[in-house]
Amino acid sequence: WVRRSDVGSEGAHVGGLSPSQPLRPYPTQPGQRSPGLCICLSLAPFHYLKEVNDPAENEKLESIETATLEGLKEMGAFGLQVPEELGGIGLTNTQYARVVEVVGVHDLGVGISLGAHQSIGFKGILLFGTQSQKEKYLPKLASGETMAAFCLTEPSSGSDAASIKTLAELSPCGKFYTLNGGKIWISNGGTAEIFTVFAKTPVKEPTGEVKDKISAFIVERAFGGVTSGPPEKKMGIKCSNTAEVHFDNVKVPAENLLGELGKGFMVAVSILNNGRFGMASALAGTMRGVIVKAVDHAANRKQFGDKISNYGAIQEKIARMAMLHYVTESMAYVVSANMDMKVPDYKLEASISKIFASEAAWYVTDECIQVLGGMGYMKETGVERVLRDLRIFRIFEGTNDILRLFVALTGIEVRGSLCSVVLNPFVLSLFCSSLFSLCSKVGIPTGLSLEGIVHPGLDNSAYLVREFFLKDLFLRAQPCNQQFHLKRVADAAIDIYAMAVVISRASRSLSLGQPTAEHEKLLCQTWSHEAFERVRENLRAVKSSTWNQSFADMKLISNAVVQNKGILATHPLGF
Amino acid sequence: WVRRSDVGSEGAHVGGLSPSQPLRPYPTQPGQRSPGLCICLSLAPFHYLKEVNDPAENEKLESIETATLEGLKEMGAFGLQVPEELGGIGLTNTQYARVVEVVGVHDLGVGISLGAHQSIGFKGILLFGTQSQKEKYLPKLASGETMAAFCLTEPSSGSDAASIKTLAELSPCGKFYTLNGGKIWISNGGTAEIFTVFAKTPVKEPTGEVKDKISAFIVERAFGGVTSGPPEKKMGIKCSNTAEVHFDNVKVPAENLLGELGKGFMVAVSILNNGRFGMASALAGTMRGVIVKAVDHAANRKQFGDKISNYGAIQEKIARMAMLHYVTESMAYVVSANMDMKVPDYKLEASISKIFASEAAWYVTDECIQVLGGMGYMKETGVERVLRDLRIFRIFEGTNDILRLFVALTGIEVRGSLCSVVLNPFVLSLFCSSLFSLCSKVGIPTGLSLEGIVHPGLDNSAYLVREFFLKDLFLRAQPCNQQFHLKRVADAAIDIYAMAVVISRASRSLSLGQPTAEHEKLLCQTWSHEAFERVRENLRAVKSSTWNQSFADMKLISNAVVQNKGILATHPLGF
Repeated sequence: WVRRSDVGSEGAHVGGLSPSQPLRPYPTQPGQRSPGLCICLSLAPFHYLKEVNDPAENEKLESIETATLEGLKEMGAFGLQVPEELGGIGLTNTQYARVVEVVGVHDLGVGISLGAHQSIGFKGILLFGTQSQKEKYLPKLASGETMAAFCLTEPSSGSDAASIKTLAELSPCGKFYTLNGGKIWISNGGTAEIFTVFAKTPVKEPTGEVKDKISAFIVERAFGGVTSGPPEKKMGIKCSNTAEVHFDNVKVPAENLLGELGKGFMVAVSILNNGRFGMASALAGTMRGVIVKAVDHAANRKQFGDKISNYGAIQEKIARMAMLHYVTESMAYVVSANMDMKVPDYKLEASISKIFASEAAWYVTDECIQVLGGMGYMKETGVERVLRDLRIFRIFEGTNDILRLFVALTGIEVRGSLCSVVLNPFVLSLFCSSLFSLCSKVGIPTGLSLEGIVHPGLDNSAYLVREFFLKDLFLRAQPCNQQFHLKRVADAAIDIYAMAVVISRASRSLSLGQPTAEHEKLLCQTWSHEAFERVRENLRAVKSSTWNQSFADMKLISNAVVQNKGILATHPLGF
Repeated sequence: WVRRSDVGSEGAHVGGLSPSQPLRPYPTQPGQRSPGLCICLSLAPFHYLKEVNDPAENEKLESIETATLEGLKEMGAFGLQVPEELGGIGLTNTQYARVVEVVGVHDLGVGISLGAHQSIGFKGILLFGTQSQKEKYLPKLASGETMAAFCLTEPSSGSDAASIKTLAELSPCGKFYTLNGGKIWISNGGTAEIFTVFAKTPVKEPTGEVKDKISAFIVERAFGGVTSGPPEKKMGIKCSNTAEVHFDNVKVPAENLLGELGKGFMVAVSILNNGRFGMASALAGTMRGVIVKAVDHAANRKQFGDKISNYGAIQEKIARMAMLHYVTESMAYVVSANMDMKVPDYKLEASISKIFASEAAWYVTDECIQVLGGMGYMKETGVERVLRDLRIFRIFEGTNDILRLFVALTGIEVRGSLCSVVLNPFVLSLFCSSLFSLCSKVGIPTGLSLEGIVHPGLDNSAYLVREFFLKDLFLRAQPCNQQFHLKRVADAAIDIYAMAVVISRASRSLSLGQPTAEHEKLLCQTWSHEAFERVRENLRAVKSSTWNQSFADMKLISNAVVQNKGILATHPLGF
């Protein structure tokens, strides 16, 4: 095995990963066992998935074909970030992102199965496990001998994760916890052997008062009392198992407490924050694949005497697809690099990238169907399946609506003002290292000029972002808690962050004289122009009395429709 | 049977249809034959579909359950607009719209089957058929004994319908045409007995030159040489049969020419224009049903200690759903009323309503899933199926992209300026009859004040529309043929039309003192405010040099991505 430290150490990129450095070999036959060998990380999964994996067949089976699964296990795909000494491949976050990007091109169902296993399923053990917990569980999880699942959601607590009712009570002897409760919509819930379970536990406060606080546990199906429901019938990601998991007087050894007693909510949030970065890179991969199909059709389909790729209506769609992909891909690798650089806090960036990627991929795939016309609606083209798979990404691991509120509230309240959100991408950007030191010193960015830092070719775009830098107090004076406002603040923050990220990336490309630099400049400029317009409108709306009236009216409209249990307006025909 | 003229003749509404007037009885048992009886049009299909039809089962079967189908035939649902003397129910367009609205609530797959049959399948016979063609075909079609299909699309001609290659050549004896060619994506293609087929025919011009021009034919499967492919596997509307239809030396009697020789393109366009109005009302029904589900969940789901319907993020979604429904429903019945009033030209309004309804229903259903969270992604909730069903509505019967170009080009070129599009809804509106006479006299609307015409409570909204009335020359001076511009002109026209339609409707409600008038006023005001902002931005973009630069850049981006057969920008990691 090649150790992580050997991989990409000479690369020019943070978390670098070179295509020529093999980790484990690409199994030439699915299922062929080649223990202790290595693959070329960047290309092997690509070829393997392309040649062996059949997403349509996986969907039909509602599980991943055995041969595919075995091959993935051989390649080490089940323990990508588990340290080598515990049987994994020990990838950095950036390397992991690159691998899941490849999976995202081919099969999001496979991606979810792998992600539910290692991105959240056993991530808690990696992040918070004791040495003995790691040694006990990680080797089998890394090899794929056992599957893991993350058990948080319950029927009455989805977004409001703190309200879970599953209970774990310590036995009088102190040797085990008795776990009771039910979880729903658990990815790998029906197939996993190892569960990271969140449950309320009675905790004695320093005051002596006993309160129910959330704790995390490593639970084995083998403990007994663990049952799972039938696979849920879903819109998409059908090859990924989703099931209820019930715990009925499960005896969990005390040493299987994960992290500190009563600190389980922090464990859950940390796992989710840590796992979020992979979503953006997986979806950047999905978009990349979908765009190939759209472009192929547009370049070959003739209507009205010309290829449809020569019509403005199609060109606008393709350009927009390319821009959305560029932003998503940039966000994905900024977040993973931040994590690899041990930046202490990346949760805002991770949340923004999750929101952005899930919506961008949805938009791009929907537009791909529109470009393909009737062909896009047919199963055989394989794009409608991607759209169905994608629908869950805006909902799970924090709905985009809740994450938007989180972005806005964190930006305004926790960090004092939205300005720090604006500054953040520059502070943390890996693309423009010169910005890093400057912005750290500057602190509050009033008066910060980006000219001379950003490549001169992007002065216009940089000017657009600076507009908002200079208006750093635009919200501080006006704290708000209305969700109508917060949504717009979040949208503005997302757009500003996106602008900053692509300006950084395009600037780097221009400075390095990369062959696609001029193309990236166009992507960056066009994106920034539109994003700037949106930010201006969103910020205007937050302060506008007309918009405030509209928000108040929407509240009234919604209340009336809710009270009426449906549409209230009299039908035009009167009945 | 109750004759059409008796139905709703006392109603206050154009094309009125009263809930208490029965046409045929509601069959108490599916399949029960009750010849010559009548139903309560508004309520019977509602109850019937609710109680008997199972959309999930239809989808699984990939066909409509036999019992449901028989019941619909009994009710006369297969010949809603066929004259009574030919075995139909003889509904007006408004009445038809009301019935398909009910179908749209319950099962869009059933709606497509019924629509493909009568809205386009045999609509040509109704509109252009000779008396003997009508007498020969309509009775069996109206009873559902035979099914009809509309055969226009071919592999190489979708949006560009004029480029079809199917050929019909007159025999030397002049008694029949020999038909050869293949059609794709034909709804009811595998189940129909009667086809409206479009084919090129050699036509002698007045100059003596022979040109291939499109003609329409009534083709029976029984003629021989007609074969159809297996049902296509689609994203949704699975119970609706979609198949290829091939014509191999089919001998079509000369008397089966539909309309004039060489005028088939006009026949096709007329059928599609005529059929389009039903889509908006069906989708208004779909939205109505979906909103009930969203509201039910929002009113009962508690998170963070409160019902989620009390949170602004959800309220904004529900309010937007209600507004989009209000606009769509208004558009649907304006178009159908125009048709019933024999307005000579309604194709712009019909196109706008098709674009708007298909996008509004998509948005509303997608947001319903978001409100429902994980539950929305599950098959059992039945909303994901609706979303899948809906995806085709933005593509078929004229893609929304092509229809947008049509709206913009017709508005600018055919009618001289976009102003007439702006005026049109007022001219044709059934809601504000006082406007009708005034606007007809006024002609070009420069200087037209709507104050005093629109209900005073809506002066603010009327002012927004008047803004554009007064800028009637905003485009005439600047003809454009770039699709980037045309898209924005179309979007502006759609928004302006939508504003006009809802102002008319809400004004009428206020004037009549309807119980929901104040609620409608809120819907109208809030919609108009947002629409006004969008129109302003769209019109600004058309004239802005910054936007023009963006359009030019998008063209370059698209061309580069097309040439590269996919994403061109260098990967952040360099490989």
